[in-house]
Amino acid sequence: MALKDVQKDVDKWTAQFDPQYWPPYEILARLIEEVGELGREINHLHGTKKKKAEEATNNLGQELADIIFTVACMANSKGVDLQSEWEKVMKLKHYGRDQNRFDKK
Amino acid sequence: MALKDVQKDVDKWTAQFDPQYWPPYEILARLIEEVGELGREINHLHGTKKKKAEEATNNLGQELADIIFTVACMANSKGVDLQSEWEKVMKLKHYGRDQNRFDKK
Amino acid sequence: MALKDVQKDVDKWTAQFDPQYWPPYEILARLIEEVGELGREINHLHGTKKKKAEEATNNLGQELADIIFTVACMANSKGVDLQSEWEKVMKLKHYGRDQNRFDKK
Amino acid sequence: MALKDVQKDVDKWTAQFDPQYWPPYEILARLIEEVGELGREINHLHGTKKKKAEEATNNLGQELADIIFTVACMANSKGVDLQSEWEKVMKLKHYGRDQNRFDKK
Repeated sequence: MALKDVQKDVDKWTAQFDPQYWPPYEILARLIEEVGELGREINHLHGTKKKKAEEATNNLGQELADIIFTVACMANSKGVDLQSEWEKVMKLKHYGRDQNRFDKK
Repeated sequence: MALKDVQKDVDKWTAQFDPQYWPPYEILARLIEEVGELGREINHLHGTKKKKAEEATNNLGQELADIIFTVACMANSKGVDLQSEWEKVMKLKHYGRDQNRFDKK
Repeated sequence: MALKDVQKDVDKWTAQFDPQYWPPYEILARLIEEVGELGREINHLHGTKKKKAEEATNNLGQELADIIFTVACMANSKGVDLQSEWEKVMKLKHYGRDQNRFDKK
Repeated sequence: MALKDVQKDVDKWTAQFDPQYWPPYEILARLIEEVGELGREINHLHGTKKKKAEEATNNLGQELADIIFTVACMANSKGVDLQSEWEKVMKLKHYGRDQNRFDKK
């Protein structure tokens, strides 16, 4: 049931807005913005020019959750059932395309 | 419990690989690749130059699930609890920063 | 005159199409797709799971040129003069915001 | 000569830093950040929730120039000659792969 609850949380919160969901291109642009913020965070945590101590934040988890939020908006607006898509992806990974993509132990 | 299950699914599947998770920059690069594939899909579905019928696919849901998979890899590799981050984001949206960001009904 | 020529090359080539330029959101989606392809290439060149020798390609330069092409499409479609914007950015870097962003020798 | 000058401008400016260029993954992460800022700008200019007048800016051109700057950093750090790659891309577009990708007039 996992991802159904995520989609429901989003649907409940966005119900207060009109339109409830932006058009797909606008959600995509927002998603890129969120992924860009994750990129900045990764550079702050792991890059050559690390964030100064006083700027250091625990933003990584929040950026990841923001990406999931935006993905759920896209899914809701397009009628995608993420839980069923998730199960398909996991099945493909177990039995299909990705079996030999990585180095096994 | 929603996102915990997603993280567990990923952890179980990736356990067969060595290393189990790529370093953060490599996961980020993969995430961008997945978001790029979503961009292509959105152009195919909604753009000026739509995909020819015979190429038409129902890939949108799979692309969204691939993004969630990659986000979960990043979270697992960095010890992030997505469910707790999700709850923080939803709380912020209800009571905080995003309250006036959209047009209410 | 550098970037003016790039914009002219693009304008000459796209003149054969109708519409000559896609709307901004579609160009943005294409840009993400191109950046995603660059991400894949960087993982192939530098990542844990390197491309097998027979797949190895010299695509990096082509991916970078594709990104510049897409940026020039956006600029042309929105009436942006890239050369003048470039000069502004270089001036800002010399005298402004980015002066202390990196570690000097 | 167009893109050679862009690369030279960047090389001259970055010469003051040590290291002169970040590793490829860090430049990629920065590129995503810049593309994310472009995404935000496009939403501000064209989206459902437009920027309030007082926030309105002419940032689009600057975001595009920032993307070109980051692409030139990647090219310089990897020894890519953008002008020659550009000419290859334009030739491919005229005689190759992209000839039938768009609708001609």
